[in-house]
Amino acid sequence: MRTIRLTVQYDGTDFSGFQVQVGKRTVQGELETTVERVTDRPTRVVGAGRTDAGVHATGQVVSFETTSGLDPSTLRRALNARLPDDVVVVAASNAPPGFNARFSARSREYRYTIWNAADRVAMGRAYVYHWRAFLDAPAMDEAARSLVGRHDFAAFAGATRSAERSIDTVRTLFRLHCWRDGQKVIVQTAADGFLTHMVRNLVGTLLQVGMHKATVGDVQEILASRDRSRAGRTAPARGLCLTRVEYD
Amino acid sequence: MRTIRLTVQYDGTDFSGFQVQVGKRTVQGELETTVERVTDRPTRVVGAGRTDAGVHATGQVVSFETTSGLDPSTLRRALNARLPDDVVVVAASNAPPGFNARFSARSREYRYTIWNAADRVAMGRAYVYHWRAFLDAPAMDEAARSLVGRHDFAAFAGATRSAERSIDTVRTLFRLHCWRDGQKVIVQTAADGFLTHMVRNLVGTLLQVGMHKATVGDVQEILASRDRSRAGRTAPARGLCLTRVEYD
Repeated sequence: MRTIRLTVQYDGTDFSGFQVQVGKRTVQGELETTVERVTDRPTRVVGAGRTDAGVHATGQVVSFETTSGLDPSTLRRALNARLPDDVVVVAASNAPPGFNARFSARSREYRYTIWNAADRVAMGRAYVYHWRAFLDAPAMDEAARSLVGRHDFAAFAGATRSAERSIDTVRTLFRLHCWRDGQKVIVQTAADGFLTHMVRNLVGTLLQVGMHKATVGDVQEILASRDRSRAGRTAPARGLCLTRVEYD
Repeated sequence: MRTIRLTVQYDGTDFSGFQVQVGKRTVQGELETTVERVTDRPTRVVGAGRTDAGVHATGQVVSFETTSGLDPSTLRRALNARLPDDVVVVAASNAPPGFNARFSARSREYRYTIWNAADRVAMGRAYVYHWRAFLDAPAMDEAARSLVGRHDFAAFAGATRSAERSIDTVRTLFRLHCWRDGQKVIVQTAADGFLTHMVRNLVGTLLQVGMHKATVGDVQEILASRDRSRAGRTAPARGLCLTRVEYD
């Protein structure tokens, strides 16, 4: 039994997220079907980030165990020849025994892209969130940086389902910053893990700061309140991309 | 009667090209329908470049005559509120009387993007042509520059229809150059006008140079031959984008 590690890029537009769901098209489903075809063995793959419907990835990491003897680069080419055109394996390697893309991950990095202009954008519109009013990116950056550290992020947890209320909502945010790049405003973050919708809720709250409807102090109060109803609206999935996963 | 000039961006993926065709979804068709709804007048729009199915634009220029009194910025906002999400007006202005986006144009600029890597790309795949083998971009650039000037480009004309054989195939190429940007190879060109499929045929020929299957001398011979069968294969539409149109 060997463990294989893949780095995967996908366009989330036409997927119901990463994780397998009956009757839905998912990234995990496409990967499992294709690995099974290539290795001729039933296979369960594990992803580092269970991205939501519509969320993209340039650096998702996936692992699986197999008895197949195919070397990683042959496997990569064989997978890419058969995967649909919105998923591609960009790297493949042998992983140490016991490696698990999800549980071995130390840090996940996401990037959120806001198209901040009066007019919509047509080319590449699947990868950005259009926000019409001018955003104060330096103010957003100051508020973003104030959230770095180990905190209870319950105020930014997406789900209100009771099952999720009881889970541990403490996470360590390694980085959260924001900058303007022409007509784009980028929010980038890395943490040991993210709660459901957490990045999109952080972005929704930073948008309020960018509009001068919330201050750094307000953001600190929201964090301390642990009250989801106080944070900004969940920003749409299309602007979000899982860019990198780090391991020891 | 006033003349309005619009700069239009579109994602060509789901269009059967710019020009109106019965029963097909076209950019011109969407623009005319929307201008008619906004101005409440039947309107015929004219585009500077009649882009093929699948070709994109960031700088298409369109003109139309109207008796509507709406000022250009109101018109732009009203059009963008009603146009489908793969077309957007990025600028609108009053044009001098007699201005015609097609016949007044002095120069059209196109950009062709090649994704030059072993693996496909998933995000943004609608805007690039994937070419697996490493391309010698400096060799392509040398061949490209050798084509600049006023020439008979019959060898790079797409159509073999007899109606097109008789048309004038002399054009002035102001610029044609090529460079590498990471895993992308970009071909950029500007001319007083382009023949059907001309940019895509030039790119197809430059790809042969990038593969060292043709030399600068070969490209000169192809140009001189005026024989379409000697040029490279027509590169796919998806990599092509109309980026700019210039007027006096």
